[in-house]
Amino acid sequence: MAEYKVIFHIDENNKWNLLLKNVSNLLNATDGEKVYIEILANSEAVKYYDISQDLNTDIETMENLYKKGVKFVACNNALTAHDIKKENIIEFVDVVPTGVLELVKKQNEGYAYIKP
Amino acid sequence: MAEYKVIFHIDENNKWNLLLKNVSNLLNATDGEKVYIEILANSEAVKYYDISQDLNTDIETMENLYKKGVKFVACNNALTAHDIKKENIIEFVDVVPTGVLELVKKQNEGYAYIKP
Amino acid sequence: MAEYKVIFHIDENNKWNLLLKNVSNLLNATDGEKVYIEILANSEAVKYYDISQDLNTDIETMENLYKKGVKFVACNNALTAHDIKKENIIEFVDVVPTGVLELVKKQNEGYAYIKP
Repeated sequence: MAEYKVIFHIDENNKWNLLLKNVSNLLNATDGEKVYIEILANSEAVKYYDISQDLNTDIETMENLYKKGVKFVACNNALTAHDIKKENIIEFVDVVPTGVLELVKKQNEGYAYIKP
Repeated sequence: MAEYKVIFHIDENNKWNLLLKNVSNLLNATDGEKVYIEILANSEAVKYYDISQDLNTDIETMENLYKKGVKFVACNNALTAHDIKKENIIEFVDVVPTGVLELVKKQNEGYAYIKP
Repeated sequence: MAEYKVIFHIDENNKWNLLLKNVSNLLNATDGEKVYIEILANSEAVKYYDISQDLNTDIETMENLYKKGVKFVACNNALTAHDIKKENIIEFVDVVPTGVLELVKKQNEGYAYIKP
């Protein structure tokens, strides 16, 4: 049985729909196999996690992906830079101190990198 | 003799000229060395493969690259999403079921990833 | 002590501020650890290295990063394509013949790839 590890990187809000579609397709294609998927958002893309803003048009898809094991992660530097309060971000989103360091660490652990 | 493996990822049509230039430069720089180059198009970028549309302005360059061993690949999810008939895509283009899975597999095989 | 190696890829001038911020954040997060950071600019992004143009708005940040060990690299194909004279580029910028080959080589050496 194959095992796949991949980190998706997003730093532009207008790429979220494309990214979520990519992730859904990947999950469909690997049904029954071990897949570790992490979505790392930094820069302005973290705004999509902020439920007090109206950017997020597809939280249902995110919830479905989360229930299937997809990890959603935010860069804390980006949250601070965009004045986003932690109590306003979607509850299943994890926060890491530095998004780019997370991207490096995961690739060191054998994760493939995809930037939609 | 060095051996190079690289997968180029494209999901925006306005990046094709830049990508083809990148690939040409890479081939010129590695003349006489073993180079495995794959171009994986998903999302709207697969439209460039559709000869019934007028997007493709540089099929000659693509043919030359193909003759030098470059693989052109399309994501079938993207072909379906954009209503592109398989009989309309350039004949030397391969189709994979899921583009992002191809990106993961190739990186697992040691391919470098480049997103122009 | 962890060791991190990462190559940042930039081919659009409007991404320089974001990229430099990413690199600064990474350096702050890895203080005291071994970090090898290279910034590879190709396509139009090499114009930012040309001090005879007015694009570069943040040479001070670049100098600070350079003093902390960050390597700034330009693709020579891109310099030629944009008629940039070598005597006009920032003195601490290195030039490689082909940017995409540099991206492949570094990934082969275990560098993570990040495209802001």
